Amino acid sequence: MQTSPLLESLMESLRCLPGVGPKSAQRMAFQLLQRDRSGGMRLAQALTRAMSEIGHCKDCHTFTEQDICTICANPRRQQNGQICVVESPADIHAIEQTGQFGGRYFVLMGHLSPLDGIGPNDIGLDRLEHRLERETIQEVILATNPTVEGEATANYIAELCGQYGVDASRIAHGVPMGGELEMVDGTTLSHSLAGRQKIKF
Amino acid sequence: MQTSPLLESLMESLRCLPGVGPKSAQRMAFQLLQRDRSGGMRLAQALTRAMSEIGHCKDCHTFTEQDICTICANPRRQQNGQICVVESPADIHAIEQTGQFGGRYFVLMGHLSPLDGIGPNDIGLDRLEHRLERETIQEVILATNPTVEGEATANYIAELCGQYGVDASRIAHGVPMGGELEMVDGTTLSHSLAGRQKIKF
Repeated sequence: MQTSPLLESLMESLRCLPGVGPKSAQRMAFQLLQRDRSGGMRLAQALTRAMSEIGHCKDCHTFTEQDICTICANPRRQQNGQICVVESPADIHAIEQTGQFGGRYFVLMGHLSPLDGIGPNDIGLDRLEHRLERETIQEVILATNPTVEGEATANYIAELCGQYGVDASRIAHGVPMGGELEMVDGTTLSHSLAGRQKIKF
Repeated sequence: MQTSPLLESLMESLRCLPGVGPKSAQRMAFQLLQRDRSGGMRLAQALTRAMSEIGHCKDCHTFTEQDICTICANPRRQQNGQICVVESPADIHAIEQTGQFGGRYFVLMGHLSPLDGIGPNDIGLDRLEHRLERETIQEVILATNPTVEGEATANYIAELCGQYGVDASRIAHGVPMGGELEMVDGTTLSHSLAGRQKIKF
């Protein structure tokens, strides 16, 4: 027998979050009710606004509540002439945190996957082609995931860039920083050998 | 540079949930935006209603949106004459799941802790005393946590029951079911020896 239908419905709703099972949902619900009701209310408001107002940027297709996201609208980034192609908006966050990239992005929201019926137009490559045609772009940096599908998507886009005479480059594959060489898998290691760079003095 | 202030505020708000750090918050936000907007809206509504409407039961002090929770209001449970004292509403859930208890509860929302300035009235023992005085209660089952504070709280309430001629009992301490005896800690094992029960044929 339950003491509160609202509490039940809160626990049930919390389970839509990834990685939250019945036990975590219960702990979250009790924690909010007992110690942080104002935090719970803030979360509810943030959720409502985000779910109803956040759409996609017209240019790069990342999540934003404006027509065009702040990165695409930034004149300094427009002048940069580089476009970095990523699979998801989370990848933009990751690249932005490095502080190494000053251009704009293009978010595919997935990757080519013919078996699942996901073709070029499903990941917005028609819009990318349109941009390659109309904008002055110096370089397209392909930062799709280092998976079979990610590589295939990168190759497809590289060919597309070639048709419009735009340089395409792929982010380097190799051993990650930190850790030990003997722990790195063979595929990564052979990529890191093939992609070796001359040390300049 | 961020693409969406609303997305940032959603990630920040999600961190009020226990066990959710920056990375999980980001994953949750993207998952909801990309795949489950209706789930996100339902969660927002459930949160708003729960945070604003859920209060405490007048009798047992558990979470409920009614004056008196469904367990306290149940006539069959009222006739039972047993009251189970627990530290938190989550404990009620745990005990209800066993299906072994047919009485009512009393939730302390904490335990006695003189060092933190938490005395008997802060955990509602004045209201429990009031109930012992006015209601016909056969037995008070003390199911506080098996910690130093939980034991002290149980002892204090047992004395209180004695003053009103009400039987008090403590849930059994001993080896948990499953697992191996050699893995059980010494304190638990000595409790299980001291609390041994005669096998009846």
